[in-house]
Amino acid sequence: MLQNIVVLAGGVGGARFTRGLVAELEARHPHPAARPSVTAVVNTGDDAWVAGLRVTPDLDSMMYTLAGQNDEERGWGLRGESYRVSAELTAYGVGWPWFTLGDLDLGTHIARSAMLRDGLSHTQAVERLTARWNDGAGLPVTLLPMSDSPIETHVEIDLGSGPELVHFEEWWVKHRAQAPARRFVQVGLPGASATWQVRDALTAADLVIVAPSNPVVSIGTILAVPGVRAAIDASGAPVVGVSPIIGGSVVRGMADACLTAIGVETSASAVAAHYGSRGTALGGSAASARGLLDGWLIAEEDSALVSAVEALGIRTRSVPLWMRDVPTSAALAGQVLDLGAELAG
Amino acid sequence: MLQNIVVLAGGVGGARFTRGLVAELEARHPHPAARPSVTAVVNTGDDAWVAGLRVTPDLDSMMYTLAGQNDEERGWGLRGESYRVSAELTAYGVGWPWFTLGDLDLGTHIARSAMLRDGLSHTQAVERLTARWNDGAGLPVTLLPMSDSPIETHVEIDLGSGPELVHFEEWWVKHRAQAPARRFVQVGLPGASATWQVRDALTAADLVIVAPSNPVVSIGTILAVPGVRAAIDASGAPVVGVSPIIGGSVVRGMADACLTAIGVETSASAVAAHYGSRGTALGGSAASARGLLDGWLIAEEDSALVSAVEALGIRTRSVPLWMRDVPTSAALAGQVLDLGAELAG
Repeated sequence: MLQNIVVLAGGVGGARFTRGLVAELEARHPHPAARPSVTAVVNTGDDAWVAGLRVTPDLDSMMYTLAGQNDEERGWGLRGESYRVSAELTAYGVGWPWFTLGDLDLGTHIARSAMLRDGLSHTQAVERLTARWNDGAGLPVTLLPMSDSPIETHVEIDLGSGPELVHFEEWWVKHRAQAPARRFVQVGLPGASATWQVRDALTAADLVIVAPSNPVVSIGTILAVPGVRAAIDASGAPVVGVSPIIGGSVVRGMADACLTAIGVETSASAVAAHYGSRGTALGGSAASARGLLDGWLIAEEDSALVSAVEALGIRTRSVPLWMRDVPTSAALAGQVLDLGAELAG
Repeated sequence: MLQNIVVLAGGVGGARFTRGLVAELEARHPHPAARPSVTAVVNTGDDAWVAGLRVTPDLDSMMYTLAGQNDEERGWGLRGESYRVSAELTAYGVGWPWFTLGDLDLGTHIARSAMLRDGLSHTQAVERLTARWNDGAGLPVTLLPMSDSPIETHVEIDLGSGPELVHFEEWWVKHRAQAPARRFVQVGLPGASATWQVRDALTAADLVIVAPSNPVVSIGTILAVPGVRAAIDASGAPVVGVSPIIGGSVVRGMADACLTAIGVETSASAVAAHYGSRGTALGGSAASARGLLDGWLIAEEDSALVSAVEALGIRTRSVPLWMRDVPTSAALAGQVLDLGAELAG
């Protein structure tokens, strides 16, 4: 019986998927005591110091969405936001004027930064921040930063005056990923490691899910943290991924620019090949020694690619992949759970 | 001719007086080139780290008032404030829930804290913060923190479980100064010193004004900073003070609780005696060697005390002391300028 589920997740896509997973588990296991626990290991490579405050976009997307506070219309951030503080910061010439910080959101950043400066680890700070929601009951998912060490993805671009490294957010938000990325550098990665909480969660997992997040700067960064891969392997749990590509296009964001930068085609099969086969599901000869996936869900629109991915040794299903709302996200999560059970059995 | 005026100032009272001084100087010297410069040396003893942000109440009262942005009705803070961020901080359990931080005000605190963490001195941060106002023209007064070293006034109180030291703001705002102060401790004062900017300004002054601010925790703290007294003495400028007491009551705040704590009666003459005579104005025999004042303005309501203060060797006038608005503040500042000229001549 499934007891411990771990999701590797980036921001908005990971949050939508995880919210659907929670809904599906509640439907399948009405009694809370019989419900599997869900832990999300979240990318922190997009984190940045902005105006002296630690901003953690992916963790906050997860927290706000799982707290039911996200702005559904805009797709990110908190409902009912206002922007009085950031207008002041811009007037003072402080921070990134192109980086939107809502007033309510700044409350989170100030609180987190104060906790970090008080000596709490990032993991402890997230635990305290999430405890507030649902009238103090907290979130239905344990959120874990992938590492307590600051790791920041920087991007090498050339704006005409030679190559330069800029923070991922500067490339992503300020330049809208228009300047071609020449390479990604995870500043702080050498010397960093997965937290013991992440290692424990992964080792105890009986299903590991790779959310439909950016394969390069979200999932790729999590997997690059020393200790993560070993803990996944130690768990013996099946690893099921969900394609972030539908019909040859990224579902959201500009993930194709990231894939292009590392020489991966924007297709559901190319991303599966990039993650690699774990070599345990189908015993395929093409299995890579460092592969990640046992199972892979692709969109109905991409059903023609099923056999190509299966040839890699990855059990593959084509299913409805659009997460339009909680029910469609829950149905997708149900497909992941079913494929996971099939792989485990 | 008067060229350089320095005001020693606390928060709201100091800000109202200084705004009146600016108006009076503009009226007396319509041509900007002929107008004396005004520098305010401002108390930073009320500063605190709140939710990881450096809050500097007196400097901000000065800045907001001189920028014309203060909330006249409430008497402090910025006009048109809102409180969305601090509600979030309280929900997260971060900061001082009893300490009001407006959203616009938090913009200032975030900006200042970012500058300090970037390595700017407090003096440099204030210079950058003040440059923003009046469409980038800055303020009509140079604001100088009394020191670039953090100095925090703490108060010994006994709430029933023995003596304890709390931050001044905790005593002042949370306890409304109801718990009797047993003593004040300037944490950080040993080893701190006046900045070179403060020393230069005082040394070059041809008039030093002691604003009608709290004599203990505002003016007293400024005077305690090593280097301030010596620079005042080095200037040779007359020192004229304005009483913060009218008719035996403090004009605002709870300054009487501070005076009581150090054994000084709440009266215009007792405060003058506490500051002490410089011994230069009237050649009085009672002049203290460490005295500060050459001149002293008290309220019309206190005119009976003029002779008692003059007997200390301090030239004293009773004048309208209520600063109801800019014209009454300007008229008071004019009285200070006139007494200063009389003492200089």
